[in-house]
Amino acid sequence: MSEFDLIRTFFRDIGPQRADVALGVGDDCALLNVPAGQHLAVSIDTLSAGVHFLPNCDPAAIGHKALAVGLSDLAAMGAQPAWSTLALTLPTADTAWIERFSAGFTALSNTHGIRLVGGDTTRGPLSVTVQAHGLIPAGAAIRRDGARPGDLIFVSGTLGDAALALRGLLAGESVDPMLRHRLDFPTPRVALGLALRGLATAMIDLSDGLAGDLDHILTASGVGAELALKQLPLSPLVAEAVAKTGDWSLPLSCGDDYELCFCIPADRADDVQALMPDCPFRRVGRIQTERGLICRLPDGGVFIGGGYDHFAICA
Amino acid sequence: MSEFDLIRTFFRDIGPQRADVALGVGDDCALLNVPAGQHLAVSIDTLSAGVHFLPNCDPAAIGHKALAVGLSDLAAMGAQPAWSTLALTLPTADTAWIERFSAGFTALSNTHGIRLVGGDTTRGPLSVTVQAHGLIPAGAAIRRDGARPGDLIFVSGTLGDAALALRGLLAGESVDPMLRHRLDFPTPRVALGLALRGLATAMIDLSDGLAGDLDHILTASGVGAELALKQLPLSPLVAEAVAKTGDWSLPLSCGDDYELCFCIPADRADDVQALMPDCPFRRVGRIQTERGLICRLPDGGVFIGGGYDHFAICA
Repeated sequence: MSEFDLIRTFFRDIGPQRADVALGVGDDCALLNVPAGQHLAVSIDTLSAGVHFLPNCDPAAIGHKALAVGLSDLAAMGAQPAWSTLALTLPTADTAWIERFSAGFTALSNTHGIRLVGGDTTRGPLSVTVQAHGLIPAGAAIRRDGARPGDLIFVSGTLGDAALALRGLLAGESVDPMLRHRLDFPTPRVALGLALRGLATAMIDLSDGLAGDLDHILTASGVGAELALKQLPLSPLVAEAVAKTGDWSLPLSCGDDYELCFCIPADRADDVQALMPDCPFRRVGRIQTERGLICRLPDGGVFIGGGYDHFAICA
Repeated sequence: MSEFDLIRTFFRDIGPQRADVALGVGDDCALLNVPAGQHLAVSIDTLSAGVHFLPNCDPAAIGHKALAVGLSDLAAMGAQPAWSTLALTLPTADTAWIERFSAGFTALSNTHGIRLVGGDTTRGPLSVTVQAHGLIPAGAAIRRDGARPGDLIFVSGTLGDAALALRGLLAGESVDPMLRHRLDFPTPRVALGLALRGLATAMIDLSDGLAGDLDHILTASGVGAELALKQLPLSPLVAEAVAKTGDWSLPLSCGDDYELCFCIPADRADDVQALMPDCPFRRVGRIQTERGLICRLPDGGVFIGGGYDHFAICA
């Protein structure tokens, strides 16, 4: 048995057994049962060493995050996670690394009851691609194109923690453990996404920063928005960094938050506040008819929002 | 619009529109309809520069092959191709490269009526991951574990062409165009796979070489096999190379063939020969009770088969 065969063996049994997996890892394809009346929701994402994580990153964090990114996309549609596939490219067959990676991937799989049903292990520069598969009753998915003028805009969790951690790491500084955890082990907001079915008119997950990701909702829905920056949910350290510099890029455009941004008709605001999901959320703005994104500063000034580009450096 | 946004735009409309795509590229997830009574078949595969293709490879060939590998896995289950997702990692946003890549990917998508429904474009060392999604009536999939003693073993197309082409390229020799085409533009045997539903007891696609891939069937089915090497379907140039050296690794263990290997009960041999699929196929051996793979040489001698390892060099 080659080392790569050994590694494949690690991935035979990740996540709980599920009755809807007719055939899992080990054949040319996995065979899956999608119940009648349900849509299959799929999302594929790659994390590359040096771009999406630092080369010396804890392998357990890479395993966690590679799956979390896909689960966050499922959450953003209001889908229930079901299955994953994993394509892992490794420079060498390092079993210690793989064990840690697998532990991180497995723990999050178990949290969400998601089964790994297929994969590919190849040699090359370190990179991880995961496809997440979820289920959602036909017609119940929360898309990006349903926002209407007057809708209230909400954001879950806190923004900018991961970006502040990355900035510290790249500067060689010691990083607050909470921030570091937010960077390495983001929490996909699956329960919140499910709770918002039938309530949110539009939703997206925040991977590239609130300004750019909200703009995807605005473009798809043909509307604009105004954000009140003083309402943004910030942890104390991010709030301090913003106050010190007056630079709002940490919560607005540095990305890596994996929180949900969603829109709610104003007359359903009480229904939303009554939800008891897996994380807090806060109202941050309002959809309006005029196109564009207006960011209102605490002092009353405004600026126009901008997104995140993988070729820009945000740290 | 950033260059990467431009590139994403290239991938918005690949393959035919399909009524079973409720939501395609452009949201957090694609939403897909799997008909009642059908299994979803999925396979994910990565091609990395320098490992699965040469750095100077025609981008159209990379686009073709990245999808062909997944379609070959669907074929090997007897599944009907339906949808693909694509995770593309590029060192730079080279639009000329992307146009060629997209052309190769699109042409094969159109051939098989498969729609690109989601993707991710990231920066990093060149690498392509594709997930192929197919449909198959529940219970009709052809797995690896159904081979029975006495079954006849068949192989489609010809073996070793791609490996001989790669050997020539790595040696800096001029390579026969037919061989080069077999390396760069492998043909997934989709129609043959579909035709074998209800007929083949076991099937696999040949990516790592006949000996190693057949061994997966033997292991899963708990049986052995004998191959008659003089029966292997070889193109004239591969036959010449084998005759010259007496080395059978080109057709047996160098891989990259993307042909189908399948097992048929002896009493259904006539039914198989009556098929008119998209490619020829030939009987090459027989399943037997004793475990292991016996390769019988044309002179009557025998040896035990061996597979392909990504860390071994076969060229």
